[in-house]
Amino acid sequence: HINSPRLWDSLMEMAKIGPGVRGGNNRQTLTDEDAEGRHLFKRWCEEAGMTVGIDSMGNMFARHEGTDPSLLPVMVGSHLDTQPTGGKYDGVLGVLAGLEIIRSLNDMGIKTKRAIEVVNWTNEEGTRFAPAMLASGVFAGVHTQDWAYDREDAEGLKFGDELKRIGFVGDEPVGERKLHAMFELHIEQGPILEDENVDIGVVTHGQGLNWLQVTLTGKESHTGSTPMPKRVNAGLGAARITELVNDIALRYAPHAVGAVGHMDVYPNSRNIIPGKVVFTIDFRHPNKDVITAMEQALRFEGREIVEEIGLTMEIEQAGAFDPVTFDEGCVLAVRNAAVRLGYSHRDIVSGAGHDACWVNRVAPTAMVMCPCVDGLSHNEDEEISPEWAGAGADVLFHAVVETAEI
Amino acid sequence: HINSPRLWDSLMEMAKIGPGVRGGNNRQTLTDEDAEGRHLFKRWCEEAGMTVGIDSMGNMFARHEGTDPSLLPVMVGSHLDTQPTGGKYDGVLGVLAGLEIIRSLNDMGIKTKRAIEVVNWTNEEGTRFAPAMLASGVFAGVHTQDWAYDREDAEGLKFGDELKRIGFVGDEPVGERKLHAMFELHIEQGPILEDENVDIGVVTHGQGLNWLQVTLTGKESHTGSTPMPKRVNAGLGAARITELVNDIALRYAPHAVGAVGHMDVYPNSRNIIPGKVVFTIDFRHPNKDVITAMEQALRFEGREIVEEIGLTMEIEQAGAFDPVTFDEGCVLAVRNAAVRLGYSHRDIVSGAGHDACWVNRVAPTAMVMCPCVDGLSHNEDEEISPEWAGAGADVLFHAVVETAEI
Ligand SMILES: NC(=O)NCCC(=O)O
Ligand SMILES: NC(=O)NCCC(=O)O
Repeated sequence: HINSPRLWDSLMEMAKIGPGVRGGNNRQTLTDEDAEGRHLFKRWCEEAGMTVGIDSMGNMFARHEGTDPSLLPVMVGSHLDTQPTGGKYDGVLGVLAGLEIIRSLNDMGIKTKRAIEVVNWTNEEGTRFAPAMLASGVFAGVHTQDWAYDREDAEGLKFGDELKRIGFVGDEPVGERKLHAMFELHIEQGPILEDENVDIGVVTHGQGLNWLQVTLTGKESHTGSTPMPKRVNAGLGAARITELVNDIALRYAPHAVGAVGHMDVYPNSRNIIPGKVVFTIDFRHPNKDVITAMEQALRFEGREIVEEIGLTMEIEQAGAFDPVTFDEGCVLAVRNAAVRLGYSHRDIVSGAGHDACWVNRVAPTAMVMCPCVDGLSHNEDEEISPEWAGAGADVLFHAVVETAEI
Repeated sequence: HINSPRLWDSLMEMAKIGPGVRGGNNRQTLTDEDAEGRHLFKRWCEEAGMTVGIDSMGNMFARHEGTDPSLLPVMVGSHLDTQPTGGKYDGVLGVLAGLEIIRSLNDMGIKTKRAIEVVNWTNEEGTRFAPAMLASGVFAGVHTQDWAYDREDAEGLKFGDELKRIGFVGDEPVGERKLHAMFELHIEQGPILEDENVDIGVVTHGQGLNWLQVTLTGKESHTGSTPMPKRVNAGLGAARITELVNDIALRYAPHAVGAVGHMDVYPNSRNIIPGKVVFTIDFRHPNKDVITAMEQALRFEGREIVEEIGLTMEIEQAGAFDPVTFDEGCVLAVRNAAVRLGYSHRDIVSGAGHDACWVNRVAPTAMVMCPCVDGLSHNEDEEISPEWAGAGADVLFHAVVETAEI
């Protein structure tokens, strides 16, 4: 067993950096708060005897040496960045549980053959810079680094410039670090484990995602003196497409989901008919063909909506990942660990995207999930119990150590 | 006839201050650009021999003395502030046509018995600080000055502080200046005059307005891992209410209008179900009872919408004015002027609110309208012809001078 109270203390310590307004966190990627969190993590890793390497995407790898230098390392980790109104555990638990594994190995005086590397992936959340899982995506060869550096936030600041500004452009070329396998512990961010009173989710698959950024263009005009038939209201179009997105998701129940989380109205004045609305649709399903069908329905029925109003519509993909099947051997290592430790468990499909989904393309990978209260995440009220965190970290510990071999 | 090319030159000169991005203007109230426009107007007035007084709401009154100091003055004017993506004529035409009246009287060597005061009312647009027509409202006793000073913009800056910052808190207590009558020339901001090829709108009434600021509260959660039935999506509620607003307006066709021009989504992240949406509904109709019925329908059917989703809804009035009947004598002066000058004309109801609507509460008031291209306003592409502007200013000139008596 890992030291569960120590893990909890570290979670609470990290949560002091970039506090939210309601008890959660706002530690968005490449902000000063993100930098502060990174420095704390680095210090903790060095205190635990690890050497911290940083790559050109700001990904941090804290290495605990193994006894056989000829073997590739086992990675374990997640991300320290949060949503603007995020929780204290989403991502952070996976990184600090990785650190706790090393601290526990040190306490126990156990050495593994393979090195273990605790990793903090840059910009998992994708709110400030779309898409999500940007830096693990570059690591896995899904995106180029140049493209990633060019991503802009809402203020027009570029990812590459902000990474430099906070001092985390490492000297190691991204993707050069080789690994034997990776494990990621994450809170479920959904209600299944808690509803079924199960300790551990053995993640076998991840569902796919499609982010479509839609720009509707109409005609700005006066809300008072423009007769109803003369209006070309982009806001009305955005409302109808928001309803359509919900409707399309319900057609593919129970596994499909769809929503509009981001919407900017222009010029956003009480007495101007919106001339432009930009918003992002989030469609997900475990089967890629269904995601394609959802997008087709959106394009087809969306066209009818905008034509009726007289709007023009542009659709641009703002992020996407295919459904993932995790590595059988790594999944087995997680399931075996849960069995060995006597935790209740079930197989589960991840509803969210995770860095592990990209890393799975370059090395065998699997994930461990623990419950979160009311399935709530991407919310400052996100909550887990120290017991849930401890159980998840224990399973992670056993899966990682078994894979790293004693 | 006034000097129409000179009026046009002044309009083009003023339009250089706070240029928009597409040929229009962004000279929002109490910005540095507003201050620059005010200084230019003051200089022009002083060059035309007028004395400029400023009241504690920043309203500017440029006085051209009459021959009989015992008589109350006739006011003429409108506003120099613009929408964030506004046109070059909305408001500005009415102020500069007032100035042109004085310049023409000077050229002609004509003296009126009553003084004429050219006025620039502060914050007519109401985009930066709701409600619209704020300072003419305080002048007319509709709002208190304390309340007006406390209005906040989107950054939380207060009206009173910003007025002070740009140096336009005048020493004259607001509302103390007495007047015999007021006239306002304004572009129609709608398509009727142009469609009917009519030069002059004789404004007999103004329709009423009701701004309802709605706050929907749901639950922020993850767009990927929150099952559809578990969502409390404030964005979906806002979409449905936007559709409802449109629907209610269409029920009371052809005179009712309704739209949502302003909407802020929180936390506005692509992968978070919106937990809160704040937006403003703009309902208008020439009959107050219909406006009341529209609000009741909104409250009743809106409640059903939010209950179905599980949201809470708060509604706060962000501005309102009753329908207005302008003064018979002043309206007649406008109609007579159009007849005398041989311009085609028709009676018209103003679709927008104007400072004249508030001033009408404290003195006899009327308005003159001229067409605008395609009925377009609150848009940088707002356009009028020099001939339309000249005709409107001519009618204004005759109505003002007749009322000020020679
Ligand atoms: N786990 C998580 O919230 N990842 C962000 C990407 C996503 O929206 O799935
Ligand atoms: N004329 C004008 O656009 N006034 C602003 C108030 C309104 O929205 O009617």
